Amino acid sequence: MGLQGLRLGVLAAISWPAPPAGYGPWEQVAFNVAEGMRRRGLDVTLFAAGDSRFDGRLVSVVPVGLNEDPALNGEVFTALHIGECFRRAHEFDLIHNHFDWKPLTYALASDAPPLLTTIHGFSSPQILAAYYAGAARSFYCSISNADRDPGLDYLATTYNGVDPAEFQFSERPGDYLCFLGRFHPEKGTHLAIEIAKRAGVRLKIAAIPQDEAYFRELVAPQIDGDRVQFLGAVEREARNELLSGALALVHMTTRPERFGLTTIEAMACGTPVLAARMGSLPEIVVDGVTGYLCDGVDEAVAKVPLLASLDRRACRAHVEKHFSVERMIDRYLDAYVRALDLRLPPQPSEAKLRARRHDWWDRPMAYTEIPPRPKNLGFA
Amino acid sequence: MGLQGLRLGVLAAISWPAPPAGYGPWEQVAFNVAEGMRRRGLDVTLFAAGDSRFDGRLVSVVPVGLNEDPALNGEVFTALHIGECFRRAHEFDLIHNHFDWKPLTYALASDAPPLLTTIHGFSSPQILAAYYAGAARSFYCSISNADRDPGLDYLATTYNGVDPAEFQFSERPGDYLCFLGRFHPEKGTHLAIEIAKRAGVRLKIAAIPQDEAYFRELVAPQIDGDRVQFLGAVEREARNELLSGALALVHMTTRPERFGLTTIEAMACGTPVLAARMGSLPEIVVDGVTGYLCDGVDEAVAKVPLLASLDRRACRAHVEKHFSVERMIDRYLDAYVRALDLRLPPQPSEAKLRARRHDWWDRPMAYTEIPPRPKNLGFA
Repeated sequence: MGLQGLRLGVLAAISWPAPPAGYGPWEQVAFNVAEGMRRRGLDVTLFAAGDSRFDGRLVSVVPVGLNEDPALNGEVFTALHIGECFRRAHEFDLIHNHFDWKPLTYALASDAPPLLTTIHGFSSPQILAAYYAGAARSFYCSISNADRDPGLDYLATTYNGVDPAEFQFSERPGDYLCFLGRFHPEKGTHLAIEIAKRAGVRLKIAAIPQDEAYFRELVAPQIDGDRVQFLGAVEREARNELLSGALALVHMTTRPERFGLTTIEAMACGTPVLAARMGSLPEIVVDGVTGYLCDGVDEAVAKVPLLASLDRRACRAHVEKHFSVERMIDRYLDAYVRALDLRLPPQPSEAKLRARRHDWWDRPMAYTEIPPRPKNLGFA
Repeated sequence: MGLQGLRLGVLAAISWPAPPAGYGPWEQVAFNVAEGMRRRGLDVTLFAAGDSRFDGRLVSVVPVGLNEDPALNGEVFTALHIGECFRRAHEFDLIHNHFDWKPLTYALASDAPPLLTTIHGFSSPQILAAYYAGAARSFYCSISNADRDPGLDYLATTYNGVDPAEFQFSERPGDYLCFLGRFHPEKGTHLAIEIAKRAGVRLKIAAIPQDEAYFRELVAPQIDGDRVQFLGAVEREARNELLSGALALVHMTTRPERFGLTTIEAMACGTPVLAARMGSLPEIVVDGVTGYLCDGVDEAVAKVPLLASLDRRACRAHVEKHFSVERMIDRYLDAYVRALDLRLPPQPSEAKLRARRHDWWDRPMAYTEIPPRPKNLGFA
């Protein structure tokens, strides 16, 4: 595709190193992009936390991931991290932003080269202000067809990808269900628990804290160390073992999933996914082949006895074919070519501009958090 | 001074409108600079909250001050506010930043015109990282000779200034002491209370909340509505009345004051200041003429009986001569001329670079807050 030698800056999030030892999906994807592009012959500079490891050029202003040392001032190091990338923007032909909306406000102020932003999700309504403003300056990629804001133009859907070689395939179905991620109602840990209990199958949970009240009230009381086990936050090897030894991953989200990186990690191990039929999951899980799409807990419970009969090789093959790093790199290379050709996003259509004039609180399913509505944003 | 027509961008903080109705010293100073420069014939654009009022060009991305509607997402609107200023940077010959360290990280990434940053204070140790990085891009002004970091070069000391016409002069000394500002140990509300009680003089307190625990434990129990009165957060007129009717303003800080805007507001009303002998205050209060500099509570108590004999006209005259907006504008115009001449700050000396290599926690008196020390910044 002729992008060999292209000088690419990849801006990673800095909550964790890239790649992360355990949890850290944005850092993982940024690393997979940087490393995949490097292998394709691009000249890649990765902006990431100082304890990252990358065979290309690594630039760090923060010594370790912000979540690894809570005493680090996240506001200061986030600003310095993004600022450093844009300070050096003239060193690159293209910048690929994996750090949410804030870099857009820097890009608006710089004559940086074409910028492509992967929107990993909308955390709360007011960040739409930044995405709508940034649309004049950055191309956007969505991580599923489902996760698109009607007011934004997207260059492409660029599904996340994993390196299948990093996941240990197991042909034999395990005898437990598992849940992997973070404790937040949208991830449905409580539903995974209910499904496992009603199906009479053991559940192993590996997750990092996020919504403490949710964990305390709906998850912690169910943990008994036997039927419902909590493994804490697992790192690479334990994570692999947990996934490959499972009967299935339960991913019954309560809000449309944006992508769901753990689902392809599970399938890479041969482990099918019991998934909510919403958001990105119908694009990722092949119903009846690599798992089941379920409309609710009842349906999920009914599917549990069928999980062992699924062909685990089909799960692995599905990831290799559609959700490998190499496929993701192909998709991004296509997007890079278009971004380099266009340089700047085209003017939005009247329809897009109209779609931006909505009450940002009118789509609660789009956001991780729904904070109170300000009186002064004109939605009254 | 030949800067007529200079295209000046003034970047204000957005916690409050500019000017603020009550508390809001950074917004007040930014407004005073913008308005003063406009009157001197500069072509001024003020970036400030949407409910600001300014006779020049006002640019706002946030509808009201962030503190006026806590539901506003401060992170988003701060980034958009700063980003908008630097997006339009090419419209200006000079940008004057009154919004702390964050704009420096944008400036590093842009080819904006010369940038001058007024350092209104160091909130906590890690923001030094931003000031040290930003020193390559922005000129710095301190607001007193005392408030200087040894690792930074400063173009000038530019004392804050008020418009004496906005403060109601009273020749007759009042019969109460007053405290004005925010509830934080560094501002010494508890010392003002102790001094007033021991001196047997009534105290009136007008302040906004900041350190809630401090207020609850050391201030609130002392409020009795008589000897110690709490007026809440006062706005323009009530503030004027409070200051001009007082015997003195008590400003017994526990940490070196950076400037102390309320001290010149008090003196503009003819009201002397009972001030801690540290930080900027010896540069602002003329001991025995416009107030007293005190080494501690005992000394302050001893000075209370002398306050009524001070010449309140001397207080007013002192502000008119040294701390008026016009004097501040003169100082900034000098600084602008030098910044425009130099374009970029000169390389720091070896001595300055050495001075930056200190444990940022080794100067606790420099900061408003001393958070825990990260393990990974190399100070171990």
